[in-house]
Amino acid sequence: MRVSSRDLLPRVLKGDVAAIARLLSRAEAADPECRDTLGEVYSRAGKAHVIGITGVPGSGKSTMVSVLAGHLRKAGHKIGIIAIDPSSPYSGGSIMGDRIRMSDLSGDEGVYIRSMATRGALGGMARATLDAVDILDVAGFDYILIETVGVGQDEVEIASASHTTLVVSAPGLGDEIQAIKAGILEIADIHVVSKSDRPDARSTISDLKQMLALGISLDASATWRPPVIATSSLKGEGFAELESALEKHKAFLASSEAGRTRSRKIAQFRMLKTAEDLLRIRFNERSAGRVAAMADRLVSREINPYAAGEKLIEGMGA
Amino acid sequence: MRVSSRDLLPRVLKGDVAAIARLLSRAEAADPECRDTLGEVYSRAGKAHVIGITGVPGSGKSTMVSVLAGHLRKAGHKIGIIAIDPSSPYSGGSIMGDRIRMSDLSGDEGVYIRSMATRGALGGMARATLDAVDILDVAGFDYILIETVGVGQDEVEIASASHTTLVVSAPGLGDEIQAIKAGILEIADIHVVSKSDRPDARSTISDLKQMLALGISLDASATWRPPVIATSSLKGEGFAELESALEKHKAFLASSEAGRTRSRKIAQFRMLKTAEDLLRIRFNERSAGRVAAMADRLVSREINPYAAGEKLIEGMGA
Repeated sequence: MRVSSRDLLPRVLKGDVAAIARLLSRAEAADPECRDTLGEVYSRAGKAHVIGITGVPGSGKSTMVSVLAGHLRKAGHKIGIIAIDPSSPYSGGSIMGDRIRMSDLSGDEGVYIRSMATRGALGGMARATLDAVDILDVAGFDYILIETVGVGQDEVEIASASHTTLVVSAPGLGDEIQAIKAGILEIADIHVVSKSDRPDARSTISDLKQMLALGISLDASATWRPPVIATSSLKGEGFAELESALEKHKAFLASSEAGRTRSRKIAQFRMLKTAEDLLRIRFNERSAGRVAAMADRLVSREINPYAAGEKLIEGMGA
Repeated sequence: MRVSSRDLLPRVLKGDVAAIARLLSRAEAADPECRDTLGEVYSRAGKAHVIGITGVPGSGKSTMVSVLAGHLRKAGHKIGIIAIDPSSPYSGGSIMGDRIRMSDLSGDEGVYIRSMATRGALGGMARATLDAVDILDVAGFDYILIETVGVGQDEVEIASASHTTLVVSAPGLGDEIQAIKAGILEIADIHVVSKSDRPDARSTISDLKQMLALGISLDASATWRPPVIATSSLKGEGFAELESALEKHKAFLASSEAGRTRSRKIAQFRMLKTAEDLLRIRFNERSAGRVAAMADRLVSREINPYAAGEKLIEGMGA
């Protein structure tokens, strides 16, 4: 018999790994049955510190996350990792999760790793990820790391919806990568330049600092100046500095209006994403027939997308 | 005095570059004033062949697009390029557009290049991009190339919403990149392996063919088998083959039920994206005060995101 989400909750609160996994799957699938339980989870959550990690592909983000998790773990913290994964019929999903699982973190009960597939999620990825954060939060994890593989608009938004956002750069990446990097620098609370053991790391760091100096003049009111931390996952260097920067940012949020502002911003994002999801789910449920018929009229250009969109919304009233 | 969108339209239809640029900007900004005109544009569009191009960062996509555009141009076609760009206060946006503009396509009136910023778009990127495609279509461009820089969920969806989707791979990319690649292979109508002049290209091509063979067995009903085309932008090799593959796919769509199915799929995607945008815009307009108040209650965990989301939707009725 299927255990209800309500009955899973007490086990989740005790940190039962199997119960956590089941509730996470239901949250990811936007199963309506678990919605009330997720509401209950939300009201109990709020203790964990959430770290969003993004960066261009090839920046060594995954390895950095796994070394960072190891360091935080050694300091006695329980660590949850949510990896936002591209997935497909070819890969079967959760490549990154598998990779981390095979690393030296595996077998440690103080570390929980979950891959969230970006494809085919009923209900959006942002809503699902933030529900997953709450589940790990109430299950007793102290730090929750959200790592994104993709660097699209959605992924950047999710990495921003955290207490501390790390943006990872690395030396030796091409032009196309640099263009993507420029698009995500602004969201960083802490910049990490990984692969600092490479000979060209020094110039990457100084280039980054120069770009940031440019940005600071645009936003003189900012009270937190994002530090640039160089790490080498290979040599295990720079992680003490990174931990200390994380602690400083946490203290900054706790001691200033910035913490409250950040929480409000996350809440607002979350509320809108959840509402959008609820809308999309209703939308898909209620008007499947009309969508198909209207698509045909759109193909023949009898109507236009705005008229079709308006018509569909009209049918949305509860 | 500001020219109305309605008055811009006749000039757009004649291919007037300044008028095209202005209407594109209004479409991108989701300016309500241009909505009726965009509806009119839609009803006149449908002649152009739309090619979506995506691929992992570092695959040499931008250079490939610019060489491909040159080839199609030489065959006498007019080419529109829409580059989906990451943008930020640091970069000022449109890095890719600038780069292409500086190439040997510049100064040719038969090529129009437009960068669309992914950030801060009021109304979503997908809706804006598809409106831009229509504008270039009615302005007389024969081929419209949509190139995405990011490889997030949104970007992949946009590249799929085209008649022919190219997925670009390249030799010598790391693990993290491979993970992303696996996530986008399935959307390809044509696979391009760029940088075929590199010595390790041969193994990339055979690896790709192996992955695809795996996929084909999953979907035996498919009547189009995506070919793998090797190109070298450096040496200008493989582009005749690529053009011929594009023509074949175009003919395939025209001669089979697949073309109709594809059009219906695009129409459905577009309708939903436009409806979502209209919802989001209304949503933001109507409930700004409530959003702020509710965010505070969410921060203090008096309510949960689902309850907040439901409350917000309730207030959405027209």
